[in-house]
Amino acid sequence: MRPRLCLAVAGACGEDDRALSVAAAAAIEILHCASLVHDDLPCFDDAPLRRGRASVHRAFGEPLAVLAGDALIVLAFETLALGAAKSPRRLGPLLRAIGQAAGMPTGIAAGQAWECEPRIDLSEYQQAKTGSLFAAASVAGAVSAGAEGEPWRELGARLGEAYQVADDIGDAVASEAQLGKPVRRDQALARPNAVLRLGIPGAMRRLEALLAAAIAAIPPCPGPDQLRNLILFEADRFLPKELARRAA
Amino acid sequence: MRPRLCLAVAGACGEDDRALSVAAAAAIEILHCASLVHDDLPCFDDAPLRRGRASVHRAFGEPLAVLAGDALIVLAFETLALGAAKSPRRLGPLLRAIGQAAGMPTGIAAGQAWECEPRIDLSEYQQAKTGSLFAAASVAGAVSAGAEGEPWRELGARLGEAYQVADDIGDAVASEAQLGKPVRRDQALARPNAVLRLGIPGAMRRLEALLAAAIAAIPPCPGPDQLRNLILFEADRFLPKELARRAA
Repeated sequence: MRPRLCLAVAGACGEDDRALSVAAAAAIEILHCASLVHDDLPCFDDAPLRRGRASVHRAFGEPLAVLAGDALIVLAFETLALGAAKSPRRLGPLLRAIGQAAGMPTGIAAGQAWECEPRIDLSEYQQAKTGSLFAAASVAGAVSAGAEGEPWRELGARLGEAYQVADDIGDAVASEAQLGKPVRRDQALARPNAVLRLGIPGAMRRLEALLAAAIAAIPPCPGPDQLRNLILFEADRFLPKELARRAA
Repeated sequence: MRPRLCLAVAGACGEDDRALSVAAAAAIEILHCASLVHDDLPCFDDAPLRRGRASVHRAFGEPLAVLAGDALIVLAFETLALGAAKSPRRLGPLLRAIGQAAGMPTGIAAGQAWECEPRIDLSEYQQAKTGSLFAAASVAGAVSAGAEGEPWRELGARLGEAYQVADDIGDAVASEAQLGKPVRRDQALARPNAVLRLGIPGAMRRLEALLAAAIAAIPPCPGPDQLRNLILFEADRFLPKELARRAA
Protein backbone atom coordinates (compact mmCIF):
# COMPACT_ATOMS: atom_id res chain seq x y z
CA MET A 1 0.00 0.00 0.00
CA ARG A 2 2.53 2.62 1.12
CA PRO A 3 4.87 2.42 -1.90
CA ARG A 4 1.86 2.28 -4.26
CA LEU A 5 0.49 5.43 -2.64
CA CYS A 6 3.87 7.14 -3.00
CA LEU A 7 4.11 6.26 -6.70
CA ALA A 8 0.46 7.21 -7.36
CA VAL A 9 0.96 10.64 -5.80
CA ALA A 10 4.18 11.11 -7.78
CA GLY A 11 2.19 10.25 -10.94
CA ALA A 12 -0.61 12.63 -9.99
CA CYS A 13 2.00 15.39 -9.54
CA GLY A 14 3.49 14.81 -13.00
CA GLU A 15 6.39 12.52 -12.06
CA ASP A 16 9.58 13.60 -13.87
CA ASP A 17 12.28 11.52 -12.11
CA ARG A 18 11.13 7.90 -12.01
CA ALA A 19 14.31 6.69 -10.28
CA LEU A 20 13.72 9.07 -7.38
CA SER A 21 10.01 8.22 -6.99
CA VAL A 22 10.84 4.52 -7.00
CA ALA A 23 13.63 5.08 -4.46
CA ALA A 24 11.25 7.00 -2.18
CA ALA A 25 8.63 4.24 -2.45
CA ALA A 26 11.26 1.58 -1.76
CA ALA A 27 12.70 3.49 1.21
CA ILE A 28 9.24 3.70 2.76
CA GLU A 29 8.58 -0.01 2.29
CA ILE A 30 12.02 -0.89 3.70
CA LEU A 31 11.35 1.21 6.82
CA HIS A 32 7.99 -0.51 7.19
CA CYS A 33 9.72 -3.90 6.98
CA ALA A 34 12.30 -2.80 9.56
CA SER A 35 9.49 -1.88 11.94
CA LEU A 36 7.84 -5.29 11.43
CA VAL A 37 11.06 -7.17 12.17
CA HIS A 38 11.58 -5.22 15.41
CA ASP A 39 7.86 -5.29 16.38
CA ASP A 40 7.92 -9.09 16.19
CA LEU A 41 10.83 -9.36 18.67
CA PRO A 42 10.30 -11.20 21.96
CA CYS A 43 10.41 -7.94 23.94
CA PHE A 44 7.46 -6.60 21.89
CA ASP A 45 4.86 -8.90 20.26
CA ASP A 46 6.96 -12.08 20.39
CA ALA A 47 5.26 -13.05 17.11
CA PRO A 48 6.13 -16.48 15.72
CA LEU A 49 4.69 -15.77 12.23
CA ARG A 50 4.84 -12.95 9.69
CA ARG A 51 3.45 -13.12 6.15
CA GLY A 52 2.82 -16.84 6.62
CA ARG A 53 6.43 -17.64 7.47
CA ALA A 54 8.51 -17.73 10.62
CA SER A 55 9.29 -14.24 11.89
CA VAL A 56 12.93 -13.16 11.51
CA HIS A 57 13.91 -13.81 15.13
CA ARG A 58 12.26 -17.24 15.08
CA ALA A 59 14.11 -18.16 11.87
CA PHE A 60 17.51 -16.57 12.56
CA GLY A 61 17.65 -15.73 16.27
CA GLU A 62 17.10 -12.52 18.18
CA PRO A 63 20.55 -10.91 17.61
CA LEU A 64 20.26 -11.16 13.83
CA ALA A 65 16.67 -9.87 13.95
CA VAL A 66 17.80 -6.75 15.85
CA LEU A 67 20.64 -6.24 13.36
CA ALA A 68 18.45 -6.92 10.31
CA GLY A 69 16.06 -4.19 11.45
CA ASP A 70 18.96 -1.79 12.02
CA ALA A 71 20.47 -2.55 8.62
CA LEU A 72 17.08 -2.08 6.92
CA ILE A 73 16.75 1.41 8.44
CA VAL A 74 20.18 2.31 7.08
CA LEU A 75 19.36 0.72 3.71
CA ALA A 76 16.22 2.84 3.41
CA PHE A 77 18.24 6.06 3.55
CA GLU A 78 21.00 4.70 1.32
CA THR A 79 18.33 3.79 -1.23
CA LEU A 80 17.04 7.36 -1.19
CA ALA A 81 20.53 8.76 -1.72
CA LEU A 82 21.24 6.40 -4.62
CA GLY A 83 17.96 7.36 -6.29
CA ALA A 84 18.61 11.08 -6.01
CA ALA A 85 21.52 11.26 -8.46
CA LYS A 86 19.51 13.23 -11.04
CA SER A 87 17.65 15.50 -8.58
CA PRO A 88 20.08 16.09 -5.70
CA ARG A 89 18.17 19.12 -4.41
CA ARG A 90 15.15 16.98 -3.62
CA LEU A 91 17.10 14.56 -1.41
CA GLY A 92 17.15 16.73 1.73
CA PRO A 93 13.39 17.46 1.81
CA LEU A 94 12.60 13.81 0.94
CA LEU A 95 14.87 12.50 3.66
CA ARG A 96 13.36 14.84 6.24
CA ALA A 97 9.80 13.86 5.31
CA ILE A 98 10.57 10.16 5.55
CA GLY A 99 12.85 10.38 8.59
CA GLN A 100 10.17 12.26 10.53
CA ALA A 101 7.81 9.33 9.91
CA ALA A 102 10.28 6.74 11.17
CA GLY A 103 11.95 8.16 14.28
CA MET A 104 11.16 10.14 17.40
CA PRO A 105 9.03 11.99 18.44
CA THR A 106 6.39 11.54 15.72
CA GLY A 107 7.34 8.40 13.75
CA ILE A 108 7.03 4.63 13.95
CA ALA A 109 9.59 4.29 16.76
CA ALA A 110 7.60 6.79 18.83
CA GLY A 111 4.37 4.95 18.06
CA GLN A 112 5.84 1.65 19.17
CA ALA A 113 7.17 3.33 22.31
CA TRP A 114 3.60 4.26 23.31
CA GLU A 115 3.02 0.54 23.86
CA CYS A 116 5.47 0.75 26.77
CA GLU A 117 3.38 3.39 28.56
CA PRO A 118 0.85 2.50 31.25
CA ARG A 119 -1.77 4.72 29.52
CA ILE A 120 -1.87 5.07 25.72
CA ASP A 121 -3.04 8.20 23.92
CA LEU A 122 -4.93 6.30 21.20
CA SER A 123 -4.86 8.97 18.52
CA GLU A 124 -1.20 9.89 19.03
CA TYR A 125 -0.32 6.19 19.10
CA GLN A 126 -2.04 5.32 15.81
CA GLN A 127 -0.94 8.57 14.19
CA ALA A 128 2.71 7.79 14.96
CA LYS A 129 2.70 4.03 14.47
CA THR A 130 0.71 3.78 11.22
CA GLY A 131 -0.46 7.22 10.09
CA SER A 132 2.98 8.80 9.93
CA LEU A 133 4.38 6.47 7.27
CA PHE A 134 1.26 6.76 5.10
CA ALA A 135 1.45 10.55 5.40
CA ALA A 136 5.15 10.41 4.51
CA ALA A 137 4.42 8.16 1.51
CA SER A 138 2.04 10.76 0.16
CA VAL A 139 4.34 13.71 0.92
CA ALA A 140 7.38 11.88 -0.48
CA GLY A 141 5.55 11.04 -3.71
CA ALA A 142 4.92 14.73 -4.27
CA VAL A 143 8.44 15.83 -3.30
CA SER A 144 10.03 13.17 -5.52
CA ALA A 145 8.10 14.70 -8.44
CA GLY A 146 9.32 18.19 -7.62
CA ALA A 147 6.00 19.35 -6.09
CA GLU A 148 5.29 20.86 -2.65
CA GLY A 149 4.94 18.01 -0.15
CA GLU A 150 2.88 19.39 2.72
CA PRO A 151 -0.45 19.81 0.86
CA TRP A 152 -0.36 16.01 0.37
CA ARG A 153 0.00 15.10 4.04
CA GLU A 154 -3.74 15.06 4.81
CA LEU A 155 -4.46 12.48 2.07
CA GLY A 156 -1.86 10.08 3.45
CA ALA A 157 -2.91 10.62 7.05
CA ARG A 158 -6.57 9.75 6.27
CA LEU A 159 -5.53 6.66 4.28
CA GLY A 160 -3.32 5.60 7.16
CA GLU A 161 -6.27 5.80 9.54
CA ALA A 162 -8.44 3.91 7.06
CA TYR A 163 -5.80 1.20 6.75
CA GLN A 164 -5.58 0.87 10.53
CA VAL A 165 -9.37 0.43 10.79
CA ALA A 166 -9.36 -2.09 7.91
CA ASP A 167 -6.52 -3.95 9.62
CA ASP A 168 -8.54 -4.12 12.84
CA ILE A 169 -11.57 -5.44 10.89
CA GLY A 170 -9.41 -8.03 9.14
CA ASP A 171 -7.93 -9.05 12.47
CA ALA A 172 -11.44 -9.56 13.88
CA VAL A 173 -12.87 -11.67 11.05
CA ALA A 174 -9.95 -13.38 9.32
CA SER A 175 -8.08 -16.53 10.24
CA GLU A 176 -4.37 -16.78 10.97
CA ALA A 177 -3.89 -18.67 7.68
CA GLN A 178 -5.53 -15.86 5.65
CA LEU A 179 -3.44 -13.08 7.24
CA GLY A 180 -0.20 -15.00 7.59
CA LYS A 181 0.26 -13.67 11.13
CA PRO A 182 -1.32 -14.28 14.53
CA VAL A 183 -4.84 -12.81 14.90
CA ARG A 184 -6.69 -11.15 17.79
CA ARG A 185 -3.39 -10.03 19.36
CA ASP A 186 -4.69 -6.55 20.24
CA GLN A 187 -7.36 -8.00 22.50
CA ALA A 188 -4.82 -10.34 24.12
CA LEU A 189 -2.41 -7.44 24.65
CA ALA A 190 -5.18 -4.94 25.60
CA ARG A 191 -4.19 -2.66 22.74
CA PRO A 192 -6.42 -0.03 21.07
CA ASN A 193 -8.54 -1.46 18.22
CA ALA A 194 -11.42 0.06 16.21
CA VAL A 195 -13.53 -3.12 16.22
CA LEU A 196 -13.26 -3.53 19.98
CA ARG A 197 -14.34 0.10 20.31
CA LEU A 198 -17.03 0.41 17.57
CA GLY A 199 -18.05 -3.14 16.65
CA ILE A 200 -17.74 -4.40 13.06
CA PRO A 201 -20.58 -2.34 11.52
CA GLY A 202 -19.37 0.82 13.25
CA ALA A 203 -15.80 0.16 12.09
CA MET A 204 -17.05 -0.36 8.50
CA ARG A 205 -18.85 3.03 8.61
CA ARG A 206 -15.72 4.66 10.00
CA LEU A 207 -13.67 3.13 7.16
CA GLU A 208 -16.04 4.51 4.48
CA ALA A 209 -15.92 7.98 6.04
CA LEU A 210 -12.11 7.95 6.16
CA LEU A 211 -11.84 6.91 2.50
CA ALA A 212 -14.23 9.72 1.49
CA ALA A 213 -12.17 12.18 3.54
CA ALA A 214 -8.97 10.94 1.87
CA ILE A 215 -10.39 11.46 -1.62
CA ALA A 216 -11.66 14.91 -0.66
CA ALA A 217 -8.15 15.78 0.54
CA ILE A 218 -6.46 15.27 -2.85
CA PRO A 219 -4.94 18.69 -3.64
CA PRO A 220 -5.26 20.29 -7.10
CA CYS A 221 -2.78 18.44 -9.36
CA PRO A 222 -2.27 17.44 -13.02
CA GLY A 223 -3.61 13.87 -12.63
CA PRO A 224 -6.11 13.37 -9.78
CA ASP A 225 -8.38 10.77 -11.52
CA GLN A 226 -5.98 7.84 -11.58
CA LEU A 227 -5.10 8.51 -7.96
CA ARG A 228 -8.77 8.52 -6.94
CA ASN A 229 -9.35 5.22 -8.78
CA LEU A 230 -6.33 3.64 -7.15
CA ILE A 231 -7.58 4.58 -3.68
CA LEU A 232 -10.99 2.97 -4.34
CA PHE A 233 -9.38 -0.11 -5.88
CA GLU A 234 -6.93 -0.54 -3.00
CA ALA A 235 -9.69 0.06 -0.46
CA ASP A 236 -11.36 -3.10 -1.72
CA ARG A 237 -8.12 -5.02 -1.32
CA PHE A 238 -7.82 -3.71 2.26
CA LEU A 239 -10.60 -5.96 3.51
CA PRO A 240 -11.16 -9.70 3.83
CA LYS A 241 -13.05 -10.91 0.72
CA GLU A 242 -16.41 -11.48 2.47
CA LEU A 243 -16.54 -7.88 3.68
CA ALA A 244 -15.16 -6.30 0.52
CA ARG A 245 -18.05 -7.83 -1.47
CA ARG A 246 -20.55 -6.64 1.12
CA ALA A 247 -19.16 -3.11 0.93
CA ALA A 248 -19.25 -3.01 -2.89
CA MET B 1 37.28 10.42 18.59
CA ARG B 2 35.17 9.84 15.46
CA PRO B 3 33.54 13.30 15.27
CA ARG B 4 36.86 14.97 16.13
CA LEU B 5 38.51 13.06 13.27
CA CYS B 6 35.73 14.11 10.91
CA LEU B 7 36.07 17.79 11.86
CA ALA B 8 39.88 17.66 11.72
CA VAL B 9 39.81 16.21 8.20
CA ALA B 10 37.25 18.82 7.14
CA GLY B 11 39.61 21.49 8.50
CA ALA B 12 42.60 19.96 6.73
CA CYS B 13 40.59 20.06 3.47
CA GLY B 14 39.76 23.76 3.87
CA GLU B 15 36.31 23.48 5.45
CA ASP B 16 33.86 25.90 3.80
CA ASP B 17 30.49 24.76 5.23
CA ARG B 18 30.80 24.46 8.99
CA ALA B 19 27.13 23.44 9.45
CA LEU B 20 27.61 20.47 7.14
CA SER B 21 30.90 19.30 8.72
CA VAL B 22 29.34 19.51 12.17
CA ALA B 23 26.26 17.63 10.96
CA ALA B 24 28.46 14.88 9.49
CA ALA B 25 30.44 14.60 12.74
CA ALA B 26 27.22 14.51 14.77
CA ALA B 27 25.63 11.88 12.50
CA ILE B 28 28.66 9.64 12.96
CA GLU B 29 28.60 9.98 16.75
CA ILE B 30 24.83 9.35 16.84
CA LEU B 31 25.27 6.15 14.82
CA HIS B 32 28.04 5.09 17.17
CA CYS B 33 25.72 5.68 20.14
CA ALA B 34 22.95 3.70 18.43
CA SER B 35 25.33 0.77 18.04
CA LEU B 36 26.31 0.94 21.73
CA VAL B 37 22.67 0.93 22.87
CA HIS B 38 21.92 -2.14 20.76
CA ASP B 39 25.24 -3.90 21.55
CA ASP B 40 24.43 -3.65 25.25
CA LEU B 41 21.06 -5.46 24.82
CA PRO B 42 20.51 -8.78 26.62
CA CYS B 43 20.70 -10.73 23.33
CA PHE B 44 24.23 -9.35 22.70
CA ASP B 45 26.54 -8.27 25.55
CA ASP B 46 23.82 -7.92 28.23
CA ALA B 47 25.94 -5.09 29.64
CA PRO B 48 24.69 -3.50 32.86
CA LEU B 49 26.94 -0.42 32.58
CA ARG B 50 27.93 2.07 29.90
CA ARG B 51 29.97 5.24 30.50
CA GLY B 52 29.68 4.67 34.22
CA ARG B 53 25.89 4.64 34.23
CA ALA B 54 23.19 2.00 33.79
CA SER B 55 22.93 0.89 30.15
CA VAL B 56 19.76 2.02 28.36
CA HIS B 57 17.94 -1.31 28.66
CA ARG B 58 18.79 -1.56 32.35
CA ALA B 59 17.51 1.96 32.99
CA PHE B 60 14.45 1.98 30.70
CA GLY B 61 13.73 -1.63 29.72
CA GLU B 62 14.52 -3.64 26.61
CA PRO B 63 11.69 -2.36 24.36
CA LEU B 64 12.70 1.28 24.79
CA ALA B 65 16.36 0.39 24.28
CA VAL B 66 15.56 -1.26 20.93
CA LEU B 67 13.47 1.77 19.92
CA ALA B 68 16.05 4.29 21.16
CA GLY B 69 18.67 2.65 18.94
CA ASP B 70 16.29 2.68 15.98
CA ALA B 71 15.40 6.33 16.53
CA LEU B 72 19.09 7.27 16.85
CA ILE B 73 19.81 5.70 13.44
CA VAL B 74 17.01 7.73 11.89
CA LEU B 75 18.16 10.87 13.74
CA ALA B 76 21.67 10.48 12.33
CA PHE B 77 20.38 10.75 8.75
CA GLU B 78 17.91 13.53 9.60
CA THR B 79 20.82 15.46 11.14
CA LEU B 80 22.79 15.12 7.91
CA ALA B 81 19.85 16.36 5.83
CA LEU B 82 19.28 19.37 8.10
CA GLY B 83 22.97 20.30 7.91
CA ALA B 84 23.08 20.14 4.11
CA ALA B 85 20.83 23.16 3.43
CA LYS B 86 23.71 25.24 2.03
CA SER B 87 25.46 22.41 0.09
CA PRO B 88 22.65 20.10 -1.09
CA ARG B 89 24.84 18.40 -3.70
CA ARG B 90 27.13 17.03 -1.01
CA LEU B 91 24.29 15.29 0.87
CA GLY B 92 24.06 12.21 -1.38
CA PRO B 93 27.78 11.33 -1.31
CA LEU B 94 27.95 12.04 2.44
CA LEU B 95 24.93 9.88 3.18
CA ARG B 96 26.33 7.02 1.11
CA ALA B 97 29.74 7.18 2.82
CA ILE B 98 28.17 7.15 6.28
CA GLY B 99 25.40 4.64 5.48
CA GLN B 100 27.94 2.16 4.14
CA ALA B 101 29.72 2.31 7.50
CA ALA B 102 26.56 1.61 9.48
CA GLY B 103 24.62 -1.07 7.62
CA MET B 104 25.13 -4.31 5.73
CA PRO B 105 27.32 -5.80 4.34
CA THR B 106 30.32 -3.70 5.44
CA GLY B 107 29.14 -1.54 8.36
CA ILE B 108 28.63 -1.77 12.10
CA ALA B 109 25.54 -3.98 11.81
CA ALA B 110 27.53 -6.45 9.70
CA GLY B 111 30.39 -6.36 12.21
CA GLN B 112 28.07 -7.11 15.08
CA ALA B 113 26.50 -9.93 13.04
CA TRP B 114 29.90 -11.64 12.85
CA GLU B 115 29.56 -12.27 16.58
CA CYS B 116 26.67 -14.61 15.76
CA GLU B 117 28.86 -16.82 13.54
CA PRO B 118 30.54 -19.97 14.86
CA ARG B 119 33.87 -18.84 13.30
CA ILE B 120 34.82 -15.16 13.11
CA ASP B 121 36.97 -13.66 10.35
CA LEU B 122 38.93 -11.39 12.70
CA SER B 123 39.97 -8.78 10.18
CA GLU B 124 36.58 -8.51 8.49
CA TYR B 125 34.93 -8.36 11.92
CA GLN B 126 37.06 -5.51 13.25
CA GLN B 127 37.02 -3.73 9.90
CA ALA B 128 33.20 -3.70 9.88
CA LYS B 129 32.56 -3.19 13.57
CA THR B 130 35.08 -0.45 14.35
CA GLY B 131 37.13 0.39 11.25
CA SER B 132 34.21 1.27 9.01
CA LEU B 133 32.95 4.18 11.09
CA PHE B 134 36.46 5.64 11.54
CA ALA B 135 37.00 5.37 7.78
CA ALA B 136 33.62 7.02 7.19
CA ALA B 137 34.46 9.81 9.65
CA SER B 138 37.58 10.59 7.65
CA VAL B 139 35.84 10.34 4.25
CA ALA B 140 32.83 12.35 5.46
CA GLY B 141 35.07 15.13 6.79
CA ALA B 142 36.59 15.52 3.32
CA VAL B 143 33.24 15.31 1.48
CA SER B 144 31.61 17.82 3.83
CA ALA B 145 34.38 20.26 2.85
CA GLY B 146 33.80 19.70 -0.86
CA ALA B 147 36.89 17.47 -1.35
CA GLU B 148 37.16 13.97 -2.79
CA GLY B 149 36.38 11.48 -0.03
CA GLU B 150 38.04 8.22 -1.06
CA PRO B 151 41.70 9.33 -0.69
CA TRP B 152 40.92 9.86 3.02
CA ARG B 153 39.62 6.35 3.69
CA GLU B 154 43.03 4.82 4.49
CA LEU B 155 43.74 7.37 7.25
CA GLY B 156 40.47 6.59 9.00
CA ALA B 157 40.84 2.85 8.57
CA ARG B 158 44.31 2.84 10.21
CA LEU B 159 43.10 5.02 13.08
CA GLY B 160 40.16 2.68 13.56
CA GLU B 161 42.53 -0.28 13.87
CA ALA B 162 44.71 1.70 16.27
CA TYR B 163 41.68 2.56 18.38
CA GLN B 164 40.62 -1.08 18.51
CA VAL B 165 44.09 -2.13 19.71
CA ALA B 166 44.14 0.71 22.29
CA ASP B 167 40.69 -0.36 23.44
CA ASP B 168 41.93 -3.92 23.91
CA ILE B 169 44.93 -2.65 25.90
CA GLY B 170 42.69 -0.47 28.05
CA ASP B 171 40.39 -3.41 28.63
CA ALA B 172 43.34 -5.51 29.79
CA VAL B 173 44.85 -3.04 32.26
CA ALA B 174 42.07 -0.70 33.41
CA SER B 175 39.41 -1.18 36.07
CA GLU B 176 35.67 -1.10 35.52
CA ALA B 177 35.49 2.22 37.39
CA GLN B 178 38.08 3.83 35.07
CA LEU B 179 36.35 2.73 31.86
CA GLY B 180 32.76 3.06 33.06
CA LYS B 181 31.86 -0.30 31.52
CA PRO B 182 32.53 -3.96 32.32
CA VAL B 183 36.13 -5.08 31.59
CA ARG B 184 37.67 -8.30 30.25
CA ARG B 185 34.43 -9.17 28.41
CA ASP B 186 36.23 -10.35 25.24
CA GLN B 187 38.01 -13.10 27.13
CA ALA B 188 34.77 -14.14 28.85
CA LEU B 189 32.95 -14.17 25.49
CA ALA B 190 35.92 -15.70 23.57
CA ARG B 191 36.04 -12.71 21.24
CA PRO B 192 39.05 -11.56 19.20
CA ASN B 193 41.35 -9.22 21.12
CA ALA B 194 44.84 -7.86 20.30
CA VAL B 195 46.19 -8.28 23.85
CA LEU B 196 45.06 -11.90 24.06
CA ARG B 197 46.80 -12.50 20.73
CA LEU B 198 49.98 -10.38 21.07
CA GLY B 199 50.43 -9.66 24.81
CA ILE B 200 50.59 -6.07 26.11
CA PRO B 201 54.09 -5.18 24.75
CA GLY B 202 53.20 -6.64 21.34
CA ALA B 203 49.92 -4.76 21.29
CA MET B 204 51.73 -1.50 22.18
CA ARG B 205 54.16 -2.00 19.26
CA ARG B 206 51.23 -2.71 16.95
CA LEU B 207 49.53 0.50 18.12
CA GLU B 208 52.63 2.61 17.37
CA ALA B 209 52.93 1.09 13.90
CA LEU B 210 49.28 1.77 13.13
CA LEU B 211 49.55 5.41 14.22
CA ALA B 212 52.63 5.89 12.01
CA ALA B 213 50.76 4.31 9.08
CA ALA B 214 47.78 6.61 9.70
CA ILE B 215 49.97 9.72 9.62
CA ALA B 216 51.71 8.49 6.47
CA ALA B 217 48.30 8.05 4.84
CA ILE B 218 47.26 11.72 5.11
CA PRO B 219 46.69 12.81 1.49
CA PRO B 220 48.06 16.10 0.12
CA CYS B 221 45.78 18.85 1.49
CA PRO B 222 45.82 22.53 2.51
CA GLY B 223 46.28 21.90 6.26
CA PRO B 224 47.98 18.59 7.18
CA ASP B 225 49.95 19.85 10.23
CA GLN B 226 47.05 20.43 12.61
CA LEU B 227 45.61 17.07 11.64
CA ARG B 228 48.90 15.30 12.36
CA ASN B 229 49.13 16.99 15.78
CA LEU B 230 45.57 16.04 16.62
CA ILE B 231 46.27 12.38 15.84
CA LEU B 232 49.30 12.31 18.14
CA PHE B 233 47.46 14.18 20.88
CA GLU B 234 44.42 11.88 20.68
CA ALA B 235 46.65 8.81 20.58
CA ASP B 236 47.85 9.70 24.04
CA ARG B 237 44.26 10.01 25.23
CA PHE B 238 43.51 6.56 23.77
CA LEU B 239 45.44 4.76 26.48
CA PRO B 240 45.10 4.34 30.23
CA LYS B 241 47.28 6.98 31.98
CA GLU B 242 50.02 4.57 33.15
CA LEU B 243 50.66 3.36 29.61
CA ALA B 244 50.33 6.76 27.92
CA ARG B 245 53.18 8.08 30.09
CA ARG B 246 55.28 4.99 29.36
CA ALA B 247 54.71 5.46 25.60
CA ALA B 248 55.65 9.16 25.65
